Amino acid sequence: MADGDDDVPLILTWDDASSGLLEEDENGAGNHDVVNNITIPASGASDPRAQNSLQQSWEMNFQEAAIYLQEGENNDKFFTHPRSAHALSAYLFAHSHLFYVVELLTAVLLMLLSLSEAPAVPFLRLDVYVHATLELLALVMVVFELCMKLRWLGFHTFIRHKRTMVKTSVLFIQFIEAIVVLVRQTSHLRITRALRPIFLVDCRYCGAVRRNLRQIFQSLPPFIDILLLLLFFMVIFAILGFCLFSANTADHYFSTLENSIVSLFVLLTTANFPDVMMPAYSKNRWSCIFFIVYLSIELYFIMNLLLAVVFDTFNGVEKMKFKSLLLHKRSAVEHAFQLLVSRQRPDGVSLKQFDGLMRFYHPRMTPRDRFLTFKALNHSGAPMLSLQDFYKFYEVIGLKWKARRSGEHWFDDLPRTALLIFKGINLLVKSKAFQYAMYLVVAVNGIWILVETNMLNDGISWTHVVPWSYIIFLTIYGIEVLLKITGLGPITYFSSGWNLFDFSVTVFAFLGLIALAFDMEPFYFIVVLRPLQLLRLFKIKQRYRNVLDTMFELFPRMASLGLTLIIFYYSFAIVGMEFFADAVYPNCCDNSTVAASYRHKNVTTGNRTELQEGYYYLNNFNNILSSFVTLFELTVVNNWYITMEGVTSQTTHWSRLYFMTFYIVTMVVMTIIVAFILDAFVFRMNYSRKNREPLGDPEDEKGIVFETEVSQTEALQTLDFYKHTLGVTNLTSLQDMCVALERSGQSSFVFLGRRSRTKSDLSMKMYEEEIQEWYEEYSRTNLQTDGTFHRELDSPDAGATNSIN
Amino acid sequence: MADGDDDVPLILTWDDASSGLLEEDENGAGNHDVVNNITIPASGASDPRAQNSLQQSWEMNFQEAAIYLQEGENNDKFFTHPRSAHALSAYLFAHSHLFYVVELLTAVLLMLLSLSEAPAVPFLRLDVYVHATLELLALVMVVFELCMKLRWLGFHTFIRHKRTMVKTSVLFIQFIEAIVVLVRQTSHLRITRALRPIFLVDCRYCGAVRRNLRQIFQSLPPFIDILLLLLFFMVIFAILGFCLFSANTADHYFSTLENSIVSLFVLLTTANFPDVMMPAYSKNRWSCIFFIVYLSIELYFIMNLLLAVVFDTFNGVEKMKFKSLLLHKRSAVEHAFQLLVSRQRPDGVSLKQFDGLMRFYHPRMTPRDRFLTFKALNHSGAPMLSLQDFYKFYEVIGLKWKARRSGEHWFDDLPRTALLIFKGINLLVKSKAFQYAMYLVVAVNGIWILVETNMLNDGISWTHVVPWSYIIFLTIYGIEVLLKITGLGPITYFSSGWNLFDFSVTVFAFLGLIALAFDMEPFYFIVVLRPLQLLRLFKIKQRYRNVLDTMFELFPRMASLGLTLIIFYYSFAIVGMEFFADAVYPNCCDNSTVAASYRHKNVTTGNRTELQEGYYYLNNFNNILSSFVTLFELTVVNNWYITMEGVTSQTTHWSRLYFMTFYIVTMVVMTIIVAFILDAFVFRMNYSRKNREPLGDPEDEKGIVFETEVSQTEALQTLDFYKHTLGVTNLTSLQDMCVALERSGQSSFVFLGRRSRTKSDLSMKMYEEEIQEWYEEYSRTNLQTDGTFHRELDSPDAGATNSIN
Repeated sequence: MADGDDDVPLILTWDDASSGLLEEDENGAGNHDVVNNITIPASGASDPRAQNSLQQSWEMNFQEAAIYLQEGENNDKFFTHPRSAHALSAYLFAHSHLFYVVELLTAVLLMLLSLSEAPAVPFLRLDVYVHATLELLALVMVVFELCMKLRWLGFHTFIRHKRTMVKTSVLFIQFIEAIVVLVRQTSHLRITRALRPIFLVDCRYCGAVRRNLRQIFQSLPPFIDILLLLLFFMVIFAILGFCLFSANTADHYFSTLENSIVSLFVLLTTANFPDVMMPAYSKNRWSCIFFIVYLSIELYFIMNLLLAVVFDTFNGVEKMKFKSLLLHKRSAVEHAFQLLVSRQRPDGVSLKQFDGLMRFYHPRMTPRDRFLTFKALNHSGAPMLSLQDFYKFYEVIGLKWKARRSGEHWFDDLPRTALLIFKGINLLVKSKAFQYAMYLVVAVNGIWILVETNMLNDGISWTHVVPWSYIIFLTIYGIEVLLKITGLGPITYFSSGWNLFDFSVTVFAFLGLIALAFDMEPFYFIVVLRPLQLLRLFKIKQRYRNVLDTMFELFPRMASLGLTLIIFYYSFAIVGMEFFADAVYPNCCDNSTVAASYRHKNVTTGNRTELQEGYYYLNNFNNILSSFVTLFELTVVNNWYITMEGVTSQTTHWSRLYFMTFYIVTMVVMTIIVAFILDAFVFRMNYSRKNREPLGDPEDEKGIVFETEVSQTEALQTLDFYKHTLGVTNLTSLQDMCVALERSGQSSFVFLGRRSRTKSDLSMKMYEEEIQEWYEEYSRTNLQTDGTFHRELDSPDAGATNSIN
Repeated sequence: MADGDDDVPLILTWDDASSGLLEEDENGAGNHDVVNNITIPASGASDPRAQNSLQQSWEMNFQEAAIYLQEGENNDKFFTHPRSAHALSAYLFAHSHLFYVVELLTAVLLMLLSLSEAPAVPFLRLDVYVHATLELLALVMVVFELCMKLRWLGFHTFIRHKRTMVKTSVLFIQFIEAIVVLVRQTSHLRITRALRPIFLVDCRYCGAVRRNLRQIFQSLPPFIDILLLLLFFMVIFAILGFCLFSANTADHYFSTLENSIVSLFVLLTTANFPDVMMPAYSKNRWSCIFFIVYLSIELYFIMNLLLAVVFDTFNGVEKMKFKSLLLHKRSAVEHAFQLLVSRQRPDGVSLKQFDGLMRFYHPRMTPRDRFLTFKALNHSGAPMLSLQDFYKFYEVIGLKWKARRSGEHWFDDLPRTALLIFKGINLLVKSKAFQYAMYLVVAVNGIWILVETNMLNDGISWTHVVPWSYIIFLTIYGIEVLLKITGLGPITYFSSGWNLFDFSVTVFAFLGLIALAFDMEPFYFIVVLRPLQLLRLFKIKQRYRNVLDTMFELFPRMASLGLTLIIFYYSFAIVGMEFFADAVYPNCCDNSTVAASYRHKNVTTGNRTELQEGYYYLNNFNNILSSFVTLFELTVVNNWYITMEGVTSQTTHWSRLYFMTFYIVTMVVMTIIVAFILDAFVFRMNYSRKNREPLGDPEDEKGIVFETEVSQTEALQTLDFYKHTLGVTNLTSLQDMCVALERSGQSSFVFLGRRSRTKSDLSMKMYEEEIQEWYEEYSRTNLQTDGTFHRELDSPDAGATNSIN
């Protein structure tokens, strides 16, 4: 019954695996050509040594196929594929989660060190030898990581890998610096610390950040073109402005050409408008025309042009990225397929091979799920997977399998009275009336909170009083949550994001109440979160659900963009700290134009004494946290020139370069973020229009669902196959399935595989037609380059024989 | 030879035209059904009365067809089509350029009146009876215009026309008000003046503004949805902020719930950042998280979402607009076609009929151009135009016809020596070397200006000295212009926009030099325009040429968007003036939080006296010009809250509503502008990618070009036809053509018809496939509704006989 005990792999991987049984291929490591000179052992050979060796070589193939598929998923280039057995062990180590975590922690530690280094955050200050030693340790870890990579990639590939080389050189510099710091026991000017984020960017877990950076760099050329246009007009207007307004002595904005340029640069960000216009305007009312024309051209036209150009590039880049990823995955699947087929049946992958693959690819998957995944792939119903079937690998691999229950509710098995009660609750919580009643309660609560807050005066420390309305509304919400959980069953309830949100807000509010009751100061903030309940109101309208759903879908990508921004912040913060630490302090800038913003003293005017408090001395670069806040303020742009002028008045006027560079860099990143949001939303709306499918509808209709029917006989056969042929011992999942089938009395079960829908799924549908073209083009070029590899793969062999039954 | 002397129109228009000759159709005015009961006069009838009457009824048909085509072009709905002969005369009057100009002038006069009314611009102040009388006069003009419209449309259509009804009621109110003002001899609170732009919007010449307004209103529903989300988060954060920061007495931003909401609204525009954060930040550094989260959600996410939603709607609306316009034009063409065909030959329009049409449609077109247009339409070469041919009407109608010259240069007819010289110049100015040399000169000039300006100190009134470099560079530019004009010929030279730009800048610079030499003060500004020469540098790169070309293409649309914005400004300015005139003045707001910005006094601190000059009292609503500048400042948003708080401190806190409303309105308009620029650019880039056609390439390749070949016999026949059959007397254009043909000795001439490419042409190519679908859908629905009208129109009758030869 068991198939292919004597099947020989079509391709053999990694030389040392094929020792003993098979004639060695002369080309040695890294050669994956079709092996034509294998001596096939006698069919059904019982020679245990040969049998064992064959098994081993299959295992090697499974592993390499799994690696190919992982590379396809992670978009790792195939030239970094491990070429030999000892490269393999390094590869496996360098691709373990432990390694990733260590990599990430090292990088984070290195970055966090700047909290404690020279201009340190007061309560985190460390002695020089402590943080220098920590740094050295972290760098040694990085060296170790690089050595593992060297071992896996081999010297030649390592040298060719640009990112790794950059990392190595940065590492080298940092190492020397750290030693110098340790020897001198004092920090010198260490601008190179700004390069530390490179270690973070190189982490496996920061792949999204790397992609963002690549996208930013790809959008740069057109961006810079338009930027030059912008700066060009700026200079022309600066000359004009200087000519027109420099005669006015009250107008310090245009007193010199440099001032003129700086003023117009700041005006580009609108941060000094209308102040920059005022001296000229008070002298001659028509001078406003100069500023209106300048702003119309620069701010309202060219700046938007910038967005348009980036948006356009972004669009194209997104599509190309999707295409290359798709084709890379396809190629990975083909590589894996070649490794999984046997010489005897080169056109199909049997369950045995597939199971072997999955043991490496997803070690924690249960045999039942492996079997169901195989069934899901197997569209034609043939006993083996053709290449066409196998192409769908990435679509089915993330599915979570669950038997479709015949009963719909969790309480179906309860006794009759209870069942009726729960049935009633179920109907109640599902009714429109209940939902709208709850919306009403939330709305009333919202108005209540507004009125209540409005009536409170700032004198009363109101958080110490528990208002009775709070208790009433909380009770209603509590009852709603309980009703819903009992009515729908906990699993259904918690599988909806909105319910989860309701639940957590209610629980938090409850915790807040307890905090109030027991007078626990630090938890007061929870009380303050009450208005979040109001967010539920936005479920009413379709568009809001779309928007909020899209928001959640975008969240990972937004987070990675945020992280990208933080990396830029980090570098700028280090540079800022090295040059401007302690530059500004209260009353520092009395002889600059922004003196008032930095003032902190009592001024007596006539008989009145008032504290002139400008606060801006708080926007400094004294430590990395302050620097981050300062940089965020610079990103928001408003009044940024006050910070710039303050620092400039305390240092040199070259400092402005720092601030202007920062502005341009954040402008790039922000434009990309805007383009990204635009692109994502327009894409989704186009998608929903194209497919006439309402987005964000009832939650259970979302996501990708695959169905697979399993009959009782099939289940038993599979159990038997796993037990005897594969010798798997832990078969509880399969046994459970058989038992459940037997108990239910049905002849077959339908299993549903679900996963949430990703952007890639949407893209697949959007570009449906183009994808076919890409595939054709791809297989054409592939046939030309390695025709041997793809021979007749696309014609599934209908005559392939039984694999299980 | 002459055709169709006795052709009877298939359809007869306007009852009174068909009197005498034809049996009257019972349905009377407005019925354009196929007339089946015409008594056809005896073929070749020489009865001059019948002949004359037939001629008259043809003329009526030509006129109505021309009106249909005009309606198609202007997107006027057909239900406003004139239904009778006296409606026709009113229609013709109401569609004359004189009428349009009067309409526009009246509207502009009405709007300009606010310069002289109550809070008037000082030097334009008029007495109440003067401006009230002017207003009454203008309103009487509007009444007259409305009467003409009533006469043309008839009472029923007039009542149904929404825009006209709104205009009528506004007119009524304004009339009463003007009389009241005249009687009381003093202006009262006249908010209704804010409605005056309605008269401007209704002008024929302001059609683009109307379209913009419609687009804005169409984009509103989704916009408002997202705006509510924005405001909702704002309120939630306001409550949170009030809870967190109201305990801090130094923090007046969150002292009450109202202040809290206002502060966060202003923060939405970033105008009070980081000041709004500073009091809280100085007390507890972690409070910055509140502001960072707020800005990230509101400013960086939801605001962009707003743009995305508007952009998406905008996209859809643009396409739908294009579609409806296209189908409207098609329908107009069909209506016109029906009026032009004769009973004898119902499938084609002959030159005679086409010429008749064109005499009404484009009265100033020469017979030659009418003939060439007919030839251009006539694709099949058949003597008559089928409906299929006629559909292209709008594509060929704007063409400017010119014979393709055999010689390429203007100097080809000159004697040999001169020819050689000019040939040399021609080659020179066309050479790359010359171009790059000029770029180099411009670049050097640019650097020179920068260095020179930088070396000048503000003390020297530099405009009074003629720098020698100025003369040198100007000489070079002058020589370049002369060389180019002689080398290319004036016509070729001036047909390029870039050359025109060069020319005008050079001429201006020359004028500036003269102004300098003769010490004419008011022309100094011309000197200051010198740096504009540098713009030429941007011709070097393809992308810049694209951008600048697109900019010029977008210009009309941008101007109309600007006008739309000004209309909003006007209304807000009137309201602002009525409520806030003279509200702010120097030192007005000493007890508000923005006192410093309104200060204008000498302050003695210790032993130093300085003028504290806040200037913001200049941003007032004291007259309409100041209001416009103030509103522009509010549009730019930065520091707008200073103006708001200043006015609020002098009036009530309800004034904030005005400023917030204005912010939201400008936000809508600005978002539309951004969406428009985005859309236009992305569209163009997509277009150029789709058609693999470089945009903005050598100028002569741009635009739409039609070719038509005319042989000598054809030319003579046409001349003959015009002279004898049509009896046209002014035939110089045709005679010139015949003479030129004879003199050249060639048997035929090729004529080129050119026009610049419009957005509509681009859209035609972009939506090629969809357009076919639209047409099919359109003809399907049309066939269902009035099947009689379209019977067999789409099958061009190949058997139609000769029309000319």
